[in-house]
Amino acid sequence: MPSELRKDPVMGRWVIISGERSRRPNPFRHYTTAIETAGACPFCPGNESMTPPEVLSYRSSCEEGGWKLRVVPNLFPALRIEGDLDKRGEGLYDVMRGVGAHEVVIETPDHESTPATYAQDQMVAVIGAYRDRMLDLLRDGRFRYVMAFKNHGAPAGATLAHAHSQIIALPVVPVRVGWAMEGCDKYFEYRGRCIYCDILSQELSDPRRVVVQNHHFVAIAPFASRFPFEISILPRRHEAFFWGLSHDHVVALAEILQDILRRYRLALKDPPYNYILHTAPPGYPSPDRYHWQVEVIPKLTEAAGFEWGSGFFINPMPPEEAAERLRDLERVMDVPEGHLLTAGSSGTRGG
Amino acid sequence: MPSELRKDPVMGRWVIISGERSRRPNPFRHYTTAIETAGACPFCPGNESMTPPEVLSYRSSCEEGGWKLRVVPNLFPALRIEGDLDKRGEGLYDVMRGVGAHEVVIETPDHESTPATYAQDQMVAVIGAYRDRMLDLLRDGRFRYVMAFKNHGAPAGATLAHAHSQIIALPVVPVRVGWAMEGCDKYFEYRGRCIYCDILSQELSDPRRVVVQNHHFVAIAPFASRFPFEISILPRRHEAFFWGLSHDHVVALAEILQDILRRYRLALKDPPYNYILHTAPPGYPSPDRYHWQVEVIPKLTEAAGFEWGSGFFINPMPPEEAAERLRDLERVMDVPEGHLLTAGSSGTRGG
Repeated sequence: MPSELRKDPVMGRWVIISGERSRRPNPFRHYTTAIETAGACPFCPGNESMTPPEVLSYRSSCEEGGWKLRVVPNLFPALRIEGDLDKRGEGLYDVMRGVGAHEVVIETPDHESTPATYAQDQMVAVIGAYRDRMLDLLRDGRFRYVMAFKNHGAPAGATLAHAHSQIIALPVVPVRVGWAMEGCDKYFEYRGRCIYCDILSQELSDPRRVVVQNHHFVAIAPFASRFPFEISILPRRHEAFFWGLSHDHVVALAEILQDILRRYRLALKDPPYNYILHTAPPGYPSPDRYHWQVEVIPKLTEAAGFEWGSGFFINPMPPEEAAERLRDLERVMDVPEGHLLTAGSSGTRGG
Repeated sequence: MPSELRKDPVMGRWVIISGERSRRPNPFRHYTTAIETAGACPFCPGNESMTPPEVLSYRSSCEEGGWKLRVVPNLFPALRIEGDLDKRGEGLYDVMRGVGAHEVVIETPDHESTPATYAQDQMVAVIGAYRDRMLDLLRDGRFRYVMAFKNHGAPAGATLAHAHSQIIALPVVPVRVGWAMEGCDKYFEYRGRCIYCDILSQELSDPRRVVVQNHHFVAIAPFASRFPFEISILPRRHEAFFWGLSHDHVVALAEILQDILRRYRLALKDPPYNYILHTAPPGYPSPDRYHWQVEVIPKLTEAAGFEWGSGFFINPMPPEEAAERLRDLERVMDVPEGHLLTAGSSGTRGG
């Protein structure tokens, strides 16, 4: 494919999709996800005293170690839960105290397992914990945004081996969220519809970029993907807030997210990755304009300071090809028949 | 220092400055910058035929190998110089052909040297080449932006060992540049002045974050630094366009940039890094509002998908401490007396 400039319709960001760049020597790096555990693992059963007291646990018994999932405050928090914001100026700068919450979701008692190897109920517990903790944190009026995300493997930012993810509650709305809202607003003012609903509809009618779908969610390789094998998981039904999802939807999200992570593991040799839940901020006044979603990014290239500095991305893997490669894994995957709808099986493949 | 939320006054981005996070096990990673060269190096003298024909060279003689610096088109270009843009829609998406320029600046004939070890005239040649190539590329009316940047070391995105940097000419203005312009506009409309001129003035009056300065430039650790030891180099005199700089300014920029890279090498054990030239786009109608600058970012942490996804940054190194550590190197550095003005020597250290 000759190289193309594609515009992200929400963020207004142009991305160079350059199939030719993948002919370079070593276009993708292979990183190991292994992290050595020096001494006792603070997230393993029996070592609960090494973490701060839990704020949530799902457990089968009240005995020590009888838990399925725990959420604890981060021992090295970026933000502190106590105190007021004390907003002030320093000359032309604005500053406030680092008030917020920084929690760790210990996803499983098993030191060795990862989302790609969990039994499904374990992944359901993880997604449920994000929802439950967000609902609780949002009762604190100081918090204007809550985010949940996972770093898998050291090259993706993890510092401990035992599977975990993080929840951060912030007293400000991150600027990226604001930019996305602006993009959604512009489209809504012009077309009178949610831009993501229209994206879903276009992607489903010509499913070249659809990787997999189930009754509640669709996983696509975005048209203007910044990174090779980047995936967006969108709920079919319009909904601005992640934390509004029902138990059925929690199960369906766990299923499709886990499916994507299994495909990464097979196609990309267990790469490091990140996923991030994007949701409208609490109190967002125009819930008909924004559509919550999960962004999943495997770490295969060194997108470094250049991209940080410029906001400009060169992606050597066209998303159509990424989607095809991830779809094709169905032949080798142990997917129960009829369980996941694949792009092809929806019968809507366009010309 | 307790953690603080600081707002970038131009981008509107909040950053968590969290000194406590640096107490974590392994807060900084130590990456190697070494890249193995398999076979002949295409950037070494004698191998000129391995690259496309040069578009610029500085040379002492016309013999093969008699060059000091070469600029050649990238052999694996992200963009192609030929053709028109062919802008079109694909449903709700926008796309255009990948028309642009992608050039490589081979900074030195010496395979082993790096900017931190160059003689000063070599660094002057590099900065001069950025200016000369930009001026030439901007004669092409299809290009709306030109950027120059360097990736040093594989973890910062370099794929070849021999010192080189890159120039990309784009048919669109990157969205980050647009956001910076908006931030500058907002400030100008309110205060009637360039925000960066005001930042310089505030930083010089209380030079805790000033690392080093010379007669034309000031290097500071930005108030809302996203990354440990991030540096901005700003010209003292207001100027929107990088390519307007005189020979005196080229020399002074080479001097201060090289000084920062030497400090990184000493303080941070030759880390991978990126630098990026930020300039107003050609034809920018309000040159009194934007101030060109160089951003320098060492690669010490894994800021991965989470930050990509959220736009939210956690920086474990307060910029005041980063500036102090980099300043303190003067005792061990071979800086000719009176050659570089240090933060302390300006006599303006505030209370």
